[in-house]
Amino acid sequence: MCVFCKIANHEIPSKAVYEDDQILAFLDISPVTKGHTLIIPKQHFDNFSDCDSELVKHIHEVSKDLVKHYQSILNPKGFNLLSNMNTAAGQSVFHVHFHLIPRYDENDGLVLLFNHDDSVQYTKEEINQLILK
Amino acid sequence: MCVFCKIANHEIPSKAVYEDDQILAFLDISPVTKGHTLIIPKQHFDNFSDCDSELVKHIHEVSKDLVKHYQSILNPKGFNLLSNMNTAAGQSVFHVHFHLIPRYDENDGLVLLFNHDDSVQYTKEEINQLILK
Repeated sequence: MCVFCKIANHEIPSKAVYEDDQILAFLDISPVTKGHTLIIPKQHFDNFSDCDSELVKHIHEVSKDLVKHYQSILNPKGFNLLSNMNTAAGQSVFHVHFHLIPRYDENDGLVLLFNHDDSVQYTKEEINQLILK
Repeated sequence: MCVFCKIANHEIPSKAVYEDDQILAFLDISPVTKGHTLIIPKQHFDNFSDCDSELVKHIHEVSKDLVKHYQSILNPKGFNLLSNMNTAAGQSVFHVHFHLIPRYDENDGLVLLFNHDDSVQYTKEEINQLILK
């Protein structure tokens, strides 16, 4: 059984901030900022690409409640909501989780840089290929 | 009217890869990797914290379809699904959008570093405060 399944069924303790029948939210054991929280469905899915969308809806509802609650206590300047799929994208536990990360200033623990890549050019044919039909 | 509202109602053209009554997905004009896509609800919300969760469910459904489709064409090694709230978190257009970013190797255009911050420590009282009641 995967480590987040064990956390979800309380075999491994966690600092839970929200729990119901389907969802658990808990403080990341290795936070990048104060309030860094993982929101998971209790049911196992490897990553967001195979997770039931009804559960993602519920994860989003919980994230909205946590944003309001954390704003009242931690006074962050913003939040990231992020899910990574596969090692190449930064996933390290292969049970779908959404990071909710309060942001405080430019030098906090999350480095998130969008570097425009000039080498990415699309031909008309490529764009046509990418269109979901 | 905000720029993404204008894109949603076709006042500004975009490289759309998916569209229905509620949702538009289009190639980011300044991609960090090939296939970097923004998925937005056509209805305006400033960010994910005030967006209707039913729409986020639908955005997630579209993201899953795009993951499968892009995997068959672009052969990425992973994906990030990410929404930023406020400037401090990297948001630059204040109409909620989810980035779907195919990942290829360690040196692609997205830098995403989770730097564990040892200074983040929680007292029992702080954890109790953070629990959503």
